[in-house]
Amino acid sequence: MNAVSSRGAQTILAPGSTIGILGGGQLGRMLAVAASRLGLNVHIYSPSAECPAAPVAQTVSVGAFDDVEAIIKFAKTCDAVTYEFENVPAVSAKGASSVTPLRPGARALDVSQDRLIEKSFLRAQVGVEVAGFEDVNSVYDLKRAVKRLGLPCVLKTRRLGYDGKGQVIIRSEAEIDAAWTTLAPAPCILEAFIPFEREVSIVAARGLDGQIKAYPLTENVHRNHILHTSTAPATQDNGSAAKIAAKILDHLDYVGVMGVEFFQMTDGRLIVNEIAPRVHNSGHWTQDAGCTDQFEQHIRAVAGWPLGDTTPRHRVVMTNLIGDDVEAWATLAKDPATHLHLYGKSEIREGRKMGHINRISPST
Amino acid sequence: MNAVSSRGAQTILAPGSTIGILGGGQLGRMLAVAASRLGLNVHIYSPSAECPAAPVAQTVSVGAFDDVEAIIKFAKTCDAVTYEFENVPAVSAKGASSVTPLRPGARALDVSQDRLIEKSFLRAQVGVEVAGFEDVNSVYDLKRAVKRLGLPCVLKTRRLGYDGKGQVIIRSEAEIDAAWTTLAPAPCILEAFIPFEREVSIVAARGLDGQIKAYPLTENVHRNHILHTSTAPATQDNGSAAKIAAKILDHLDYVGVMGVEFFQMTDGRLIVNEIAPRVHNSGHWTQDAGCTDQFEQHIRAVAGWPLGDTTPRHRVVMTNLIGDDVEAWATLAKDPATHLHLYGKSEIREGRKMGHINRISPST
Repeated sequence: MNAVSSRGAQTILAPGSTIGILGGGQLGRMLAVAASRLGLNVHIYSPSAECPAAPVAQTVSVGAFDDVEAIIKFAKTCDAVTYEFENVPAVSAKGASSVTPLRPGARALDVSQDRLIEKSFLRAQVGVEVAGFEDVNSVYDLKRAVKRLGLPCVLKTRRLGYDGKGQVIIRSEAEIDAAWTTLAPAPCILEAFIPFEREVSIVAARGLDGQIKAYPLTENVHRNHILHTSTAPATQDNGSAAKIAAKILDHLDYVGVMGVEFFQMTDGRLIVNEIAPRVHNSGHWTQDAGCTDQFEQHIRAVAGWPLGDTTPRHRVVMTNLIGDDVEAWATLAKDPATHLHLYGKSEIREGRKMGHINRISPST
Repeated sequence: MNAVSSRGAQTILAPGSTIGILGGGQLGRMLAVAASRLGLNVHIYSPSAECPAAPVAQTVSVGAFDDVEAIIKFAKTCDAVTYEFENVPAVSAKGASSVTPLRPGARALDVSQDRLIEKSFLRAQVGVEVAGFEDVNSVYDLKRAVKRLGLPCVLKTRRLGYDGKGQVIIRSEAEIDAAWTTLAPAPCILEAFIPFEREVSIVAARGLDGQIKAYPLTENVHRNHILHTSTAPATQDNGSAAKIAAKILDHLDYVGVMGVEFFQMTDGRLIVNEIAPRVHNSGHWTQDAGCTDQFEQHIRAVAGWPLGDTTPRHRVVMTNLIGDDVEAWATLAKDPATHLHLYGKSEIREGRKMGHINRISPST
């Protein structure tokens, strides 16, 4: 049972094998649970021993994400390694992949860690539509870029932004200097503002054999730049989001689950906003949809197993529990249509994701 | 978040609290996963550090089940304690309950550990129908009991029987001596043979507030005395099994999930075969039925939370993977209608439960 069968780079993990996860947040926690269902063990690598994934993982190795030696040592205890957040330094990921299969590969990190590289890759190599963008390294660059892209527009740091952090909207020329001062001296990207009709996303997986399976289109609502609700299946899905995701997955020779976020225009056109090389918050609804959930799907791909079913049996509305939203747990636990998911975080902080609920909708 | 609120014996566990589980088999493993979903931590007490629950539990305390001092020490690290198998010695369970709320209580163990006490309790106190039975402590007792109950009949040890172990069918008077020799000198019970139409069971829960919720009736097929398949909802459920289960739960002032197994006669009458004061193999189908699964339901009850929804959204057929059945995992993983659950047991043995599959049936 414990054997790992190998065909070149095509290592298949049998039940009893161990998957290493770089990162120990709530995504790692839910991945560990999914792995246990398939008889697979999980080792976590995290800067904190008290991370959300720790209570459900076999071991936690505590270390910094830029400690390449420690990550290589960790990877040697695993039959395959994956990651649950996209800011693992590429050099660390490459270190892990030098001793153990890394799925998805380091290239997905290279591309998704830097908004400039990401947008260039999507436009030039994959050939999908993204917002207009310009490289910005000085206030001079910024002024020229604003002229090219028009107002309003959005200045973002190239790296390490999430949940609205590291970005500033510029609505008039008078705001340019202040915007630059806020983010400088970080290398930035200026993006044209997209007057979207709605925000949608797709979660799709690619297996070791190249097979691709996408979940249905999901409609997302953000509050204060943080995902608030995801509803799936979204209305008016013409299949183009799944096609775009498949192109991206193939271009990266990707193995695992990816989240792709889009702006949808009034004419229906989809503009790729960003990609996340991991399980995605807008895919949490899959846990209570009656099909294979995104966490098990990712584990299946990482283990080299066939991908599972992605057809939901009913509509689900996922709502994040942010900060003190979680204090309503006792009330939420009473509602028969609500599935409660808590991440075991003891400290409540404003804007912190503490859990989520999946509400089954009566209409399908 | 970490606070435990207490109203006399009515301790409610908030997210962040710790549930102790006596036993670390697959039931403990699946209970630990359910607890993590609700933001609760799990400590396991098991004779083996390498038990199936270990990889998904926060800690494992290794000790014997009859080591009362060790169990008391373990219970002190938990906000509530439960058990995943019914042969925890009552003295150990009582030790745990002297320092921490024990749910279900020790009385459920007293009753279910001994077939003679169990059947007497069910008939005399609860007032439900059981097979005719006689106390047997000698071959003389046995001969007299066979005369009273008639042939065929079944000789069983009073304690520690499971999956057909510790029982012998007696079909003729010539077999009496051999049957006694097989099981002696263990105290035994002789039971009348029930010519049943089918075997059914019900999994029901009782909350700390006395609320009772039952899942639908489940039809079970055994092979070699081991559960092979459970299909739910069963056809022809007139609600009487749920009523019987509710009576038993109330009589024990029970908190948690219980499994009640029945023989159903051709005239529809239900005869209680046995009760299991824990989550039950015939309730594994609830994991993929779209409602609260039995593991979360048990954790909710133990934590003092409201019980969850028990209405399945579709029919499910659960099939156990026994011994080398598990070697088909790669084929089973390909079927979109099959949800695979493996227990992480490395050693395959004949008759050992290695995992199960839940197949969603197209008809509801």
